[in-house]
Amino acid sequence: MFDKKIKLGTMFEFYGQLLTEKQQEILEDYCILDLSFGEISEELGISRQAVYDTIKRAEKQLDQYEDKLGMAARFEQREKAIRHLVDGMREIDVKISEEAEASELHERISELIREASDILE
Amino acid sequence: MFDKKIKLGTMFEFYGQLLTEKQQEILEDYCILDLSFGEISEELGISRQAVYDTIKRAEKQLDQYEDKLGMAARFEQREKAIRHLVDGMREIDVKISEEAEASELHERISELIREASDILE
Repeated sequence: MFDKKIKLGTMFEFYGQLLTEKQQEILEDYCILDLSFGEISEELGISRQAVYDTIKRAEKQLDQYEDKLGMAARFEQREKAIRHLVDGMREIDVKISEEAEASELHERISELIREASDILE
Repeated sequence: MFDKKIKLGTMFEFYGQLLTEKQQEILEDYCILDLSFGEISEELGISRQAVYDTIKRAEKQLDQYEDKLGMAARFEQREKAIRHLVDGMREIDVKISEEAEASELHERISELIREASDILE
């Protein structure tokens, strides 16, 4: 349930602008303000069932956008690549402190550059 | 004209899956296979004007998707960040060859990590 909500939040962040204003309002309450179905129902003066249905329908639409465009997946891959490079740099930084051989540093840097280049291809 | 076609190609790469099959077919001919309006018209047995109109309309739709979602811009920013990190690593690699002081290397690495972290925030 928790993971599912995080996933919905990510999809909403990516494709939310393609939903109707009403859907956006409800998903904002649900995903960003973390309100319950009951709280949203009270706030907007609609039934709890209507809140649930709107979220379910929006979720389906957002999943369809992701199936077609795959932005979230591609974006996440890029984020990972940046984090990986940053981790590699921290590691090299430590190696330098420990006065590692230049050859070892060169090798590790080349490896990281190769990995990054693969992703950018 | 040339830049505009490259931009259209990028938008098509990002949001093409949201267009109709017919639009996708024509934009593929135009942006990827680099066919002329005349060649596409001949291939598909439609008028040159119809090819032109379809491309113009698709272009407008793709621009609207980018206005709403801004994926191409965000993605490009990530790509730049990765390239920037790779350039920084190459530079550090050269500095190591030149036997730079550890303190200088640490400083440069910290700077790159800071820049990357700013982008990931």
